Order: sequence, then structure tokens, then C-alpha cells
Amino acid sequence: MTDEIVGRTAAVMTAIRTKLAVRALSPGEKLPSIRRFATTMGVSPSTVVEAYDRLAAEGLIRARPGAGFFVSGAVSPLALTEAEPQRERAIDPLWVSRQSLDAGPEMLKPGCGWLPADWMPNAAIRRAVRGLAQAGDAVLTDYGVTRGALSLRRHLVRRMAGEGIELGADQLLLTASGTQAIDLIGRFLLRPGDTVIVDDPCYFNFQALLRVHAVRIIGVPYTPTGPDLAAFAAALAEHRPRLYVTNSALHNPTGATLSPQNAHRLLTLAAAHDLTIVEDDIFADLEPEPSPRLAALDGLNRVIRIGSFSKTLSASIRCGFIAARPDWIEALVDLQVATSFGGPSPVAAELIAGALADGSYRKHLEALRRRLSRARREATARLGSLGITPWIVPRGGFTLWCRLPDGQDAAALARAGLAEGLVLAPGNVFSVSQTAGSFMRFNVAQMTDPRVYDGLARAMEAAKILPASSP
Amino acid sequence: MTDEIVGRTAAVMTAIRTKLAVRALSPGEKLPSIRRFATTMGVSPSTVVEAYDRLAAEGLIRARPGAGFFVSGAVSPLALTEAEPQRERAIDPLWVSRQSLDAGPEMLKPGCGWLPADWMPNAAIRRAVRGLAQAGDAVLTDYGVTRGALSLRRHLVRRMAGEGIELGADQLLLTASGTQAIDLIGRFLLRPGDTVIVDDPCYFNFQALLRVHAVRIIGVPYTPTGPDLAAFAAALAEHRPRLYVTNSALHNPTGATLSPQNAHRLLTLAAAHDLTIVEDDIFADLEPEPSPRLAALDGLNRVIRIGSFSKTLSASIRCGFIAARPDWIEALVDLQVATSFGGPSPVAAELIAGALADGSYRKHLEALRRRLSRARREATARLGSLGITPWIVPRGGFTLWCRLPDGQDAAALARAGLAEGLVLAPGNVFSVSQTAGSFMRFNVAQMTDPRVYDGLARAMEAAKILPASSP
Repeated sequence: MTDEIVGRTAAVMTAIRTKLAVRALSPGEKLPSIRRFATTMGVSPSTVVEAYDRLAAEGLIRARPGAGFFVSGAVSPLALTEAEPQRERAIDPLWVSRQSLDAGPEMLKPGCGWLPADWMPNAAIRRAVRGLAQAGDAVLTDYGVTRGALSLRRHLVRRMAGEGIELGADQLLLTASGTQAIDLIGRFLLRPGDTVIVDDPCYFNFQALLRVHAVRIIGVPYTPTGPDLAAFAAALAEHRPRLYVTNSALHNPTGATLSPQNAHRLLTLAAAHDLTIVEDDIFADLEPEPSPRLAALDGLNRVIRIGSFSKTLSASIRCGFIAARPDWIEALVDLQVATSFGGPSPVAAELIAGALADGSYRKHLEALRRRLSRARREATARLGSLGITPWIVPRGGFTLWCRLPDGQDAAALARAGLAEGLVLAPGNVFSVSQTAGSFMRFNVAQMTDPRVYDGLARAMEAAKILPASSP
Repeated sequence: MTDEIVGRTAAVMTAIRTKLAVRALSPGEKLPSIRRFATTMGVSPSTVVEAYDRLAAEGLIRARPGAGFFVSGAVSPLALTEAEPQRERAIDPLWVSRQSLDAGPEMLKPGCGWLPADWMPNAAIRRAVRGLAQAGDAVLTDYGVTRGALSLRRHLVRRMAGEGIELGADQLLLTASGTQAIDLIGRFLLRPGDTVIVDDPCYFNFQALLRVHAVRIIGVPYTPTGPDLAAFAAALAEHRPRLYVTNSALHNPTGATLSPQNAHRLLTLAAAHDLTIVEDDIFADLEPEPSPRLAALDGLNRVIRIGSFSKTLSASIRCGFIAARPDWIEALVDLQVATSFGGPSPVAAELIAGALADGSYRKHLEALRRRLSRARREATARLGSLGITPWIVPRGGFTLWCRLPDGQDAAALARAGLAEGLVLAPGNVFSVSQTAGSFMRFNVAQMTDPRVYDGLARAMEAAKILPASSP
């Protein structure tokens, strides 16, 4: 359409909207006939048809075949606005997710688990989106194959080859997200009452997810070089767990890295106790240089690799993956068809594959790692001036796992933070044993605004006089 | 980039690809330095950098910071091809899904449950995709709000207002698909060992999904005007089911429509036995005129409405929704965060909202309904000449539930059909009681190619001499 026609269509739409707003047209009432309103407005009938169709698509009016257009019911859907996150809910493993996902634009989010939108490779994504507009009809509208788009699976096979993992076509399944990947694995391997080991502290949503599976969750203390292996061995002997779920590359929330010796010993223990391990590799692309990977050492025998593209490419284009033994993948395909019908969105997989194949992605990652180093230094210094000190300084990523000054309770501080416009991530949401009440996870990429520190200082004052709430 | 620069970059990439193909460069070997190769190729160093970056993005080569570019490992991921669907697997409720989702392009799919890609509103979707390229960074890369994009929720509120359902902002949740919507509800309401009623026949994936939930599935015979209410009442009294899952608008696979009297009596029975009902409204937009809806009669008290956009807009852009009581939605949000982190893809929801708001969608639906009427008439006539007769002729949609000629077993015919290049949907995959062995579901939109009928005739001949396999 030319701009002129667009303008005339918009004028007709505005005229009808005005009639609705001033109640010159009421719910259920018939709209002027197309011919009559075209004369009234001095436009062609086809312009009125276009305008009515668009208003109908918005739901303001409805077409009744053979009878014309009528004003829709009395509900005013324009009044539909976002519900505020409930501030008073318990600070449990879902608390940070709900607060940070649903936070309004006025909130600052040093507790959230992702990068600011303007740190992401938006130009490459826009190029991929423009490429998608040229894709065939089947990509745009059909269900995809059950294992997910071949273009993205090929990329993942190459990437894992670089780690020394030789993947067959039957060992890879795309999913709707990294979380859904773990969920599918849980549905396949776990039964209610089974025991699962996680790190203590660990990513809070591992706990939220495992609770849905009604399993017993055992935490093993995490050290700067991986899980405490004496405690791990004791947990294996005592609880006979079915599964261990952990982050590789950069541990969440600590930012720690598994050492090669610990990786090897962990796999030896796992083999002795027939333990399956889910290795969540979601932070891989934030690493400055590669660290040991359980899947690479094990060759995808008892280790299942999962990952996604949410942390360095896009969390809006939802897509994750599972690499595992062929017989397990075959079963997971059935499970994914039964519970989601088909695999992940072909459109999403094409967008991800397109952005990854864009020559700029490597440069984006290099720039991102430099930017994160700077942000980490700055945040460490500014938190230090508030008496907040990192447990370790991670070699990459955006998390900083910090000890609060004596007397500060992280949950109380998180509640006080909300009143100051800050979404924080208090330590015990990460801790199965609830022993991290004086820790807080910070996201250095979300702390470049000085108001974060001003708000934090005020919240620390306020939290001192609050009762220490149970986490 | 100009075309010329693109051409030079491509030339450098081809030169490297050729070296790899003829093994002039082997896995692990260092690539020529950027400066040297620029001189060799007679291009600028930046052109070589661009080409190397693109090859690295494809995974063929890898950058090692400070050391240059190296050939990736020995795996040849270009060899990764699609696995054929396993033809010998049991004909169970997952059989049709796996065969039709993974069928190669040479297969005809009169048994699949969706429209051909060129029957979908591709132009409107392309416009929405181009619109997405202009969206803000947050839409492209951020996690979305937990209930899903406001634009699409507003559309759904308006649409339901047109049915007389007044939805609050806290009664609607977007999901990753219609199937995932039912799965979430199942995880919320069902416990292993609970009983669930489905129609007999019903959409086969209801059974596959409910089996994942480890519930007992009871089928109630479906009549041309809804479930057999005497049998339904008896099932309520005998089994005390927790849930009833059904299609509204156009029943799958029969294409039948619930009558107003049966809708009312069904809700009365449900109230007397405290039964919750999931009403899957996925075929709503294929209806020629509206039919009774349980959610509208009940006002979302004990009825949960779910739906998606897969049948009339796009199955590739995965998105579904749940409308229900506010307290249930609040719990479902937590469940969705725990198991998928966040709601559906904001990018997907924006694309769906964009295509729905496109003025052309109503015309697309009208044209689609006319096209389906023609296809239904033609398929009915041609199937008739093979002795295959519809149970009823539906007033809309694409399914035709047909009785096979005497002596034909649907499962045997489906197996014989694969050899003829046809994916068929044999009756018993839809039937809990396994009493539909002489029925077949056809999709009239997938039967405009005359080869379907030729293949069907040959398969019917072949199936006669096969042993009737158990379904």
C-alpha cells in the first residue's frame, strides 16, 4: 500500500474509534454500511473495507457474514494491563524469577540472570529476522521435524566437534528452552521419590524444577574448583541419587570453574554409583577460554549435555538443546511430541541458526567478554565500598556471588530492595541447605547505573531494622 | 556491504572450503595468516577477516585468540542428515505424529492434522516478520513477562469478549503451544492414578500426553452431537474422574459439533460430580458459524479454555494459551516458570499478534473455509468411489472420519500406505476402547493430489493380503 492509502485507512479507523470512545456507537450496534461511510469520509469503499477489517482484527468490531459489521461486546480490552509482581510472596526459588521477569521498566535488576537487551547482538538478530521474511512457506507455517531444524543441529554438531565430542544425527534434540530440556530429561529419568544431587549453592530454578518432579533434592557444597568431592562421595553412598544437575563453564551463582582433576574424579565416582549427570552448558560462550567439560571427558555416555542461546544471543527467541545417547534421544523425542507436539519452533531455530552463522557473532562475544571484565572490576570496587565482598572473582560471565556485611540478612535486604526499585537475588534461594542467608548474587552487567548502589545503600539501612525473615 | 565486497568475501570462503575439501588443509592445521592470504587472493585483509569469521561461525574453522585460525575437528557435520521415521514401530497414539512430522518431502500426508503450508496466510506472516525486524531490542532478546506478550493477550481478551467471556488480565496465560497448555494443566490438576475422561474417538495426542501423566484414561463414545451422555454419567459415577479433555467447535477426528442441549447437560453433570473440563478450542477459526462453547456457558468456573494458532495461522511460530480462574492461572505461571523459564517466546507472540492484527486475516479465513468446503466435497466423492464413506459430513474443518470397506483393517492399510508414499491416520490411534479399527481419519486439504487416491487404491489391495495387525 502507498503511504497515502495507509493514511486514508488510518483516518477511517480513527473516525470509528472516536465514535466508540464517545459512545456514538454502542456495543452490539451496526456500523455504517461500507458504501455510506465511504461517501461520508470521501474515500473509496475499499479503504473502508480495509479499515473495518483492521478494526475487526483488533476485536473492536465484528463481521457477521451477510449482515455487515457490528460493535463488539462491552469489555474494554485496552484496559488490560500488566499485573504487578506480588511483592509479598515467600522468598522461595521462584521468587527471583517472578520478580525479575515481571519487573516494570522502572525497576533496576542487579539480581536478574541475564544481560541487558542492548548488550545482545541485536544487529545480527535483525539481519536474521529479515532473512526469515524470505524463507519458504513451510518454514513460516509448518510444524517442523521432531528433532528440530537441521540448520541449527548442524551448527551444534560442529561446535561439539570442536570440544572433541563426535555427535551422530541421532544424538541431538532441539527443545523449546534449556529449562525445558532439563524438564524433559527429568520426566524421562526421574520418578517421584527419586533423589537428585545439585550444587549448594545452585541456580535456583533447578530447585523449582525438581520440586515439580517431586524428587528429593540433596545439595553438595560447591568449592571454587567444583563440588566438594568428599561430600559428593558421601551423598552417593548414602542417598543413591539417580541424577546430578550442574552448570559447566561458569557455575551459577558462584562463577566458579570445575578443575580438570575434579572433573575426572567426579566422573569416576559417577561411574561407580551409576549416576547420570546433566551438564548445563548455558554459559559456554561467556568463557574467556575453555574449561573442562564432563560431556567431553565422558563422551556422552552417562553425561547429558544441555544448553541454550539465551545468555549471549536471545532469550526471546526460545530454543535449547539436548545431546545424549541415541536411545535416550529417541525416547525424549516421543516425550516432547506428547507434551509439546513436535520440537521447538522452526522459526525460532532458523533465527538462532541465522544469527549464529552471521560473521559478527564471534566479534560480539569478544566485545562482550571485554565489557564484562570492565563491569566486573567496577562492580567489585563499588560493592566493596558498601562492605560487600565477592566469594571469588570469576574469570568470566556476569555473576558475582558476594558475602554481605555482618548483620545483613539477604532476604530482608531483597525485600527492602524492592521498595528502592531493585530486584535482588538473595543467597538462600540458591541454597538447598539454606546456609547462604548472608550471600547475594549480583549481575555486574545490570549494575552500570549508579542508582543501583544508592538504592542498595538505602536498602541496607532499611533492612537492618527489619526482622530477619525466613528465606 | 556492497555486492562487490560480498562477492570477494565469498571468493575467499570458497578458496578455503576447496582447500578443506581436497585436504590441502587438515583438521587442526593453522590457516594462512590474514595478511598473507589477503595478498594471495588480491583482497584487503578486512575481507579475509570477514571470510574467516563466517567460516568460524559455520564451525569449519576455529579462532584461537592470539594464535590465528585453525581447521576444526575431523567430524564432517555437513554429513548430518535427517533420520528417516522408523516405519516398524508400533501403531500407537504417537505413530501418526512421528510419521507425519518427520515424513520426507516425497510423502503425501492425507493422515496429518494440519493444512498444507501454501494454504496458510504466508503474506500476512511475512509482513509480521518484517515488522519484527523493526521491534525494540527488548522484544528481540529479552525474556518476556511470565504471562506472555500483552499485545497477544489483549487480542485474546477481545476475542473471548465476542463469545461473552469477560476475562480479567489475571485469567490468561500464553504458553509455548496448545499441547503444552494441556500439559501444564495436567501437571497442576492431575496426580498419577487419577482418572481422566476423553472422547472415543479423540485426538490421539490427548492419549499420548495423558499417558505421560500416568493417569487412567476412560473413553466415552462420541456421537454426532457430543459425548454419549448416558455413558458419560455412568463414567462419572463409576470412575470419579478429575478431568475431561475435549475439543470444541469441530471435534477431532470426527468433525462433529456439540449441540446446545448436550453442552448444558454436560456442564450440569460436571457440576454434580465436581469435574473440571479442558476445552481445546484449536479449530475455532475453521468454523463456518459459531457453535456452543462450554467455557462461555460456564464462565470459566470449572471449564479451562485452551487454544493455539497452529491450524489457521502458523504451527512453526509456536504459541498457545490458557484462560482459567485467576488462582489457577497464578499457579500455572509458577509451573511454567519452573519448567520452561518464563512464558512463550516474546518474538513468537509478537509475530502471532502482528499477523492477527493484519487486516487480511478475516479474508484469509473466509477463503480458507470456501476452499475447505470444495476440498471436502471432492474428497468425499473420490473416497466414495473407493468404498470409503464418511461417518458424518462435517460443517467445517479439514477432518473426515471415514469407515473403510468391509475387510479392510485401518492399521494394516496405514502400514501398506507408507510403502505407497502415504502417511495415514488409522482409527484405533484415536480410540481408547480400540473399537475404531475399521475407521480412518482423512485430511481433505492434503488430498488435492490425485496420487493420494491411486496410492490408497494400491495400499488397499496390498493390505488385504497382510495379516490384520493389532493396532
